Formats: sequence, C-alpha cells, structure tokens
Amino acid sequence: MSRPPKPIIRSDIAYSTPDRIVVRGKDLPNEILGHMNLGDFALLQLTGNTPTREQSAMFNAILITLVEHGMTPSAIAARMTYAGAPESLQAAVAAGLCGLGSVFVGSMEGAARMLSEALPKPAEDADLEQIARDTVAAYRARGATIPGLGHPLHKPVDPRTPRLFQLAAENGMAGNYVRLMKLIGAEAERVSGKSLPINATGAAGAICCEFGFPWTIVRGFGVMARAIGLVGHLMEEAQKPMAVEIWQRIEDEASAHLRGDVRADAVRRSA
Amino acid sequence: MSRPPKPIIRSDIAYSTPDRIVVRGKDLPNEILGHMNLGDFALLQLTGNTPTREQSAMFNAILITLVEHGMTPSAIAARMTYAGAPESLQAAVAAGLCGLGSVFVGSMEGAARMLSEALPKPAEDADLEQIARDTVAAYRARGATIPGLGHPLHKPVDPRTPRLFQLAAENGMAGNYVRLMKLIGAEAERVSGKSLPINATGAAGAICCEFGFPWTIVRGFGVMARAIGLVGHLMEEAQKPMAVEIWQRIEDEASAHLRGDVRADAVRRSA
Amino acid sequence: MSRPPKPIIRSDIAYSTPDRIVVRGKDLPNEILGHMNLGDFALLQLTGNTPTREQSAMFNAILITLVEHGMTPSAIAARMTYAGAPESLQAAVAAGLCGLGSVFVGSMEGAARMLSEALPKPAEDADLEQIARDTVAAYRARGATIPGLGHPLHKPVDPRTPRLFQLAAENGMAGNYVRLMKLIGAEAERVSGKSLPINATGAAGAICCEFGFPWTIVRGFGVMARAIGLVGHLMEEAQKPMAVEIWQRIEDEASAHLRGDVRADAVRRSA
Amino acid sequence: MSRPPKPIIRSDIAYSTPDRIVVRGKDLPNEILGHMNLGDFALLQLTGNTPTREQSAMFNAILITLVEHGMTPSAIAARMTYAGAPESLQAAVAAGLCGLGSVFVGSMEGAARMLSEALPKPAEDADLEQIARDTVAAYRARGATIPGLGHPLHKPVDPRTPRLFQLAAENGMAGNYVRLMKLIGAEAERVSGKSLPINATGAAGAICCEFGFPWTIVRGFGVMARAIGLVGHLMEEAQKPMAVEIWQRIEDEASAHLRGDVRADAVRRSA
Repeated sequence: MSRPPKPIIRSDIAYSTPDRIVVRGKDLPNEILGHMNLGDFALLQLTGNTPTREQSAMFNAILITLVEHGMTPSAIAARMTYAGAPESLQAAVAAGLCGLGSVFVGSMEGAARMLSEALPKPAEDADLEQIARDTVAAYRARGATIPGLGHPLHKPVDPRTPRLFQLAAENGMAGNYVRLMKLIGAEAERVSGKSLPINATGAAGAICCEFGFPWTIVRGFGVMARAIGLVGHLMEEAQKPMAVEIWQRIEDEASAHLRGDVRADAVRRSA
Repeated sequence: MSRPPKPIIRSDIAYSTPDRIVVRGKDLPNEILGHMNLGDFALLQLTGNTPTREQSAMFNAILITLVEHGMTPSAIAARMTYAGAPESLQAAVAAGLCGLGSVFVGSMEGAARMLSEALPKPAEDADLEQIARDTVAAYRARGATIPGLGHPLHKPVDPRTPRLFQLAAENGMAGNYVRLMKLIGAEAERVSGKSLPINATGAAGAICCEFGFPWTIVRGFGVMARAIGLVGHLMEEAQKPMAVEIWQRIEDEASAHLRGDVRADAVRRSA
Repeated sequence: MSRPPKPIIRSDIAYSTPDRIVVRGKDLPNEILGHMNLGDFALLQLTGNTPTREQSAMFNAILITLVEHGMTPSAIAARMTYAGAPESLQAAVAAGLCGLGSVFVGSMEGAARMLSEALPKPAEDADLEQIARDTVAAYRARGATIPGLGHPLHKPVDPRTPRLFQLAAENGMAGNYVRLMKLIGAEAERVSGKSLPINATGAAGAICCEFGFPWTIVRGFGVMARAIGLVGHLMEEAQKPMAVEIWQRIEDEASAHLRGDVRADAVRRSA
Repeated sequence: MSRPPKPIIRSDIAYSTPDRIVVRGKDLPNEILGHMNLGDFALLQLTGNTPTREQSAMFNAILITLVEHGMTPSAIAARMTYAGAPESLQAAVAAGLCGLGSVFVGSMEGAARMLSEALPKPAEDADLEQIARDTVAAYRARGATIPGLGHPLHKPVDPRTPRLFQLAAENGMAGNYVRLMKLIGAEAERVSGKSLPINATGAAGAICCEFGFPWTIVRGFGVMARAIGLVGHLMEEAQKPMAVEIWQRIEDEASAHLRGDVRADAVRRSA
C-alpha cells in the first residue's frame, strides 16, 4: 500500500530503435559487425569498454582455453539430454551448463577469489611473498585445498599454464595477481613437499584478476566458453550418436544385481 | 543377454595426454592459444577445419549479431534465477538459454531449414526464381509464416541485414542461399502486397547455409552467442539488481484481484 | 509512446496476506495441509477444483507411473550434473528434466494429442470405430508412428497398461478416449499385422483426455513426476556415486582412437 | 592403463524385465498403483521404505507446503521461458527450478543443516536448551542469520508453522529436532529482542530431520514440489499469458534512459 516510490528498472547494456541497435554505446551493424571478433565483443558486453589489442589477445585466449575439455560430465549430460529432446537443442546446452559448479569450474572461481581477497587492490608495492605465505598458511590451517594448483592428468606441468602466462607477459598483463599466483604455487610446494604446478584454471583465474573482474563473475567465463564447446558436441551427437549406447550399458549394469535376484527367485519358485 | 557386439563410443573432437591437449587435431596451447580468436575456434570446434580469413570474418559477425538483444525474456529469466541462486551462476545462464526455442531463435533455424530444403545442394545453375516462387506458394498454401521476413520493431529495414549481406559479399559468401533468401523476400512482398524486409535471422540463416551447416545445428549458434550476452546481464544484475523489484511489482499486480476479494469479504463479514 | 492501455497482469492461482496463504481459493494451512495428498493438490493447483475420490485415485496413479523408469538418460544427465555442482542440486534436477522431450515423454503427449484431435468433444454417440480407422489410416498415409503403441522391452504386454485401464474402469474414467485408444491399437495391429500393445504412455495419455486436460499440458505431468524420481537418484548418487566412473569410462573409450594415433606417431617419430 | 578394476555401476532403485517394473522391491502395477498416493511414493522412492500412515500424512503435508508460493521469481522465469519455447515445456519447468537456491529454498536446507549438525543423533537425553543457546551464540558470533526464523510478509506468525507442528504432534514426529527448532527460535528472540517466529521452512526443515533425512537432500523436496507448482503456472500461462506484457514493460523501462539520450542527440544534431 504505502510502498516507497518504485525503484527504476534500468539496464545500461543495449537498446533498439526502429533503425538502430546499440550495444554499450556502439552501433551494432556499423561499429561492431566486421570490426570485432567474438571474444572482443564479449569483453565489450561485460565491461562497456572496447578492448585494446592486448586485452583482445588475452581474453580470447582465456575463453578458448575453457571451451573444450573432451568427454566431460557436462558433455555427457548435454548428449543424454539431446537424445531425449533433439527438438530442444537449447535445453541440451542448458543441461550441460548446469553442472559447471564447484567441482569443475570452481577452481578458476576459487583462484580468482583467493587472489582478489588476498590483494584487494593490485598495489605496486605489496609484499607479495608475505601475502603468499599468509595465504597458503590460512588455507592449510583450515584444511582447505588451495585452488588452481595440481591436476590429476596433466603432470608434471599443465601445458596450458606456461602458454597463458607467456601470453600474459606479451600483452602486459603479467602483473601482481599473476606474480602472486606463482608465489602461492611455489610456497604450497615448499610447505607440502609435493609437486603442485599451477593448472589452467589457476592461470586463467589470476589473469581474470589482472583484468579487474570481480571473482563472482569468473565462473561465467567458463560457462559462456563451454556453451560453444557443447554445441560442438551436440553437432557430433546428431551425426554419430553415443547417448543411447551409454544409456543401455549403464542401465544393464546398474540393475543387473536386481534383475539377477528376480531370476534366482523365479528359479527357486519354479523348483 | 544376446546383444550384438557393443558399438564403440567414439568422439573426434578432442583428447588429452599428460603433456598435451589436442582439439580437432591442433595442439591447444601452441597452435590455438594466441593464434585464433573465439569465433574462429568455435568454427574449428564445430567443423574440424581452421577457418579462412573470410570465414573468420563472417562467422564472428553472425555470432556477434546473436549475443545481445536487450532485456529479452531470456535475460529476464536469467536475472530472476540469479536472484534466487546467486551461488549457481551457471544455472542462471542455463535458465536463460532454455527459452531460445521456436519463438525467439526459431526464425533463424526456420530460414536455414527453408533454404536448405528448397536447395539441398548449392547448385550453380538452379532456377532460383522458380524455387523462390514455389517456396512462397507452398508456405502460403499451408498458411505458414515465411521465416526470416519482417520485424515488429525494425521497420522498414532491419539494420543488421544489409550489413550482414555486405559482409557476405565482401567475404565471398553471398552465394545461392543468400540470393534465394532475397528472392523469397521479394516474392513474398509481391504476392502479399506487404513490406516484408529480410530480418537479421533471415540473413544469418541464409549465411549459415552458405557455410554448409545442417539446419538442425543453426539454433545452437544463437544459444552459444546468447550465453555470452547472459553473462553480461548477470554481471550487471549483481551490481545493479532489478529482479526483486520486477518480482514484487508482478506479484502485487497479479494477485490484486484475489487479495481485493478477501478484503471485500472481510468488510462484508465485519458489517 | 502511444501503446494501448497496459493489459493487466493477473494470475488466479494463489495469493498471500500477512496471516493467510490461499491456493485456488482454499486456505493452505487449514483446508489443505493434512486434508489432501500431493497428487490431489497437484490436481487442485492445475484445475482449481478439489478432486473427487475417483479423480484422486486416478491422477495419483498416473503421476506415480511416470516418476521412475530406472537409469534413463534423464537420470544419467542429472547424476553427471550433480558430480560437477553438488551444491546446486536444483540445477541437477533441472538438467535431468531438460531431456523430457519428443523421444521420452513425447509419446504420452502424442497419444493425448491424437485422441483429442480425433475426438474434440467426448461425445457419447461418436462412431469410435470409424474414427479409429480414419486415425490409423491418416498416420499410415503420412508414414508417422502411432503414438502410445508398442514398447521395446515390455512385450507382449506393457504391465502398466492393464492396471491403468483397470483403475480407469473402477473410477468411472474409462470413457470414449480410453475406448478410442483401444480401438486405435486394435486397428493398428489389424492393418500392420504386428503386435502393437498399448503402452503406459498411451494409456496415461488417454486417461488425461478423460480428465479434460488439453494435450499441450500433458508433457508437464511427466515432468513433475520425474522431478520426484530424479531427487531419488541424486540422493543415491550422493551416497553411492557412479557419475565419475561413467565419465572416466566414456572419456577413455571415446578418445582412444585419437590417443592411439598419437602414440603410434610418437613411436614412428622415435624410430 | 593400469587402472584398478572398474568399480561396478549399481543402483538399488528400480529395474524392469519384459513383464515387470519393480521400484524399491515393489511391483509397480500391482503393489503400488492404486495403493499409494504420490507423496507416499516419493517417500518410497527416496528411502526404500513404505511409509507408515503417520509418515504419509506428514510427508504429503511438507511437500504440499512447498508447491506454490504465488508469482515468485521461479514462476516468472518459467513463464518467460515458455514464451520463447512453448514446444519445450520441460525446459520452462527446468528454468523455473534453476533458481531454487540459497535465497529461496536455502532456509529450509539451512534449518535442516543447523539442526542436524547441532544434534547429530536425535538422542533422547540431549540438553536441548543448552544446544539451542550454543547454536544461537555461534550464529551470532559469526554474524550469520539463523535459518528458519522470521518472514518478510507473514507477521507476527507464519500461518503454516503452527499447522505443520500440529501435524507433527498428531503423527508422532514432534521429536527433538522440532523441540530444538522451537528452543532456537525462543532463544533468538530472547537475545535479539526481536520477534522471530519460526517460518514454514524452519518448521519443514525440522520435520525433515525427524524423518532422518540428511540435510543435503532437503533442498530436493522443495525442488520436486515446486515442479508441480510450475506446471500449474505454465498451464495458466498457455491460457492467459502475461510473459510478453512483462517483457515489453521491462524492456521499455530499462532502456528508456538510453533511448532518451539518442533522441536528445538527434535533436541536437538536427539543430
């Protein structure tokens, strides 16, 4: 009844008029199409700023790193969904994205969170070594895994990491967050005595901090990139399907012990 | 029991070994990162082929066209979802994608389907004018809307269309499918007497046929592009939320007539 | 600018005041909780009417039939999603539901559509035998599969069908739609010479028509029921996980041919 | 290569043979259909046990409480999705479920977690008053909101709470978890000096603990229940749509400031 005056609902991203479509202040047909690539436009959509050449190179590389990881649970979920609803391809992509949570893209988000909380402003003169020691000590004290380190398959080195850091260096984005990530990795190896190379999500998480992104959006980069990868999987699934075969194998194996009981029962009853 | 030998489950997209990650036969860190942009990589992921410069320009432009359309139902659904589960950003993107169906990206799929069914092979010497007349007649005979024509807001011209066709011409992709789409548009205007300009989804659908994509995957390009747009909306929603205000307004208005009855009843009862 | 007066946004389902929550005109705490079961309440939510004893028995049976079908693609998708995002259980259920489309619950929707289009009003004196012949002939003429008939596993009889029809008879719901479904099944067997028993989705689809539901909502009954089943699968997955094992097996098998090439290459290069 | 022997993939929920469908050891057609209601079957699916009469009454009441809450963000997201993809009704339900996270069903999960962590075994002789004091103190010490208390609209009492607790008492399920929830509510009011009545999610969370459910699955009850509610909303949306009107209003308002600038610019330029 006596609600305060309505807040205005307002978005600064885009608008249309009969003869114009404007995104982030740029005319889509004339200033964007043919002038930008998809990764550049993603950065414009997110930040409102046209990327520099260096930002373009770096952000495209990070997103590409996240597109495709083989026959992941995400790809399997998308393919199973497509088998049931091929007319709803968008829902198959959505199903595949739903699982990009704490386990699979969480470590990129976790690395970005760790770094941005440890170094809220990318100050030039921070004592990064001390921050690295404190950070590792804090994670160990509460028994938590340090995000962005180690990989079950890629040993002793995640081959994406040196390349991402090389691109960061070439593009002027190897600042304090990248340095801190490396120092944390070294400190974690020192105190644990284990080989803990920085993995791709650790490298990407650090570079996202260099861009100034809040850690809460970093998961979204994995989500947008993987959407591309999943469409690739669904195109293959349409041509060379595997979902029904997977289903039958799992159904057969998962309930074998139950069906076995029945047959045994039937034998007993017929005896 | 006596199932035939198991089909082999097989994907040709990617694989990993401890020291390598290979997508479509290319070494991800060394042959892809830093050498391709995101739209190029999408095309590689989908087709297995490295795009030419012309394909790169064209495919990036098509995808960018589909990223952002303002405060669409898709963006609203994603924002409402984020309000309830901000810790599950991937689920908010998924929710936004779920509605990219027959109404909103359907016309691009429909245009690609119409064109590829009318011209199964992009034959040089097809009588495109006759095909256009037949196609329009067939749609009209069954009372169906011809996909890719007209727009509720963008009149008399969808400003994206001439630009997409210009890029197609510049990049050697203004072949028979683009010609056929234009002829269908002209024929539809002729027989209906109405202004029916080709809209962005008609243009993009025709160009997808020029790429040789099957129409069944074309919806996926809208889905992958919009995933990027939705992450932009969620980043804005996190900073300047509108979802709760939308919810309260709709809740208030939608049930006013029911709550009103109650108050009226209460008054009657107390009288 | 000159838009016509805004339509009113209005829902008749429910409302709340500080001391009341009312659904479909009934006070939730006092008139519903403890007085209805979940299937009854679903019917109230959908139709606005409190079910009779017979409707209650029948609708609960239909929904229960749809809850659980073993290790389906839907259950696998939900479990794969949970493995990646266990903190987003709602997204795992959503992923599982996304695939309930034309292939898996489509036949119930298809049967309801076929029956309601063949018999738009459940007229007492319709010539059901003629309608059955015409319907079967029309499907055969366009080479379409008649929905609701046959089952890959349940032969010669789907054991749910006689039970659902028995419950329909006991509850006064074995009317013209059930009769027509049976006649269509018999006619399809006659003209095809094959055994085509009515399956559970054919029986359930026919009974949904007896309830008077539009065919467009019938898919929703499969969706709401399966949501219950999926939560059961996720509870089991949390306790006895299978998703990671499925993933590893598929990943190993799907890319073996690619990894094999690499090893062979390596051998060749080292020779 | 040298992976250990494959774990067996195994589910204990259900199996099918040509003439049988068995869920949790019960023959679906003959022992379940016509003998159980939907809430009972949900409990059987989840636990493997046939509910007692008391469990049936209580579990049906909890689920019904969670089905419908008016025009929530979840219902709006489902309706917006349906507007774009009416042929993918399952995806609209999925979209609506995706937002049932920490904000909206989180308090039920949170209450169940708080109670089960405070009282890992429902011991007869626990000092519940001391546990309540410790629990409240611990939440206050870390500045956390105590879940299950207070409601923005339902004041001074959430009308569902006394009814749920009454049903718990009538059905022998008002044990130590219900007692502890009440003691925590009283203690929170005492130390804060504010009115903090137990809300419906606090009551339901406590009763879920009485059932012995792990807190990690409690969110799933909200999800399965809300799936039913959402199908009701989509049935209404199909008949009396509101999504397009919502979209147009929000689009108009959200970008007014951007479009305004353009017009102002145009005026300036033409001056």
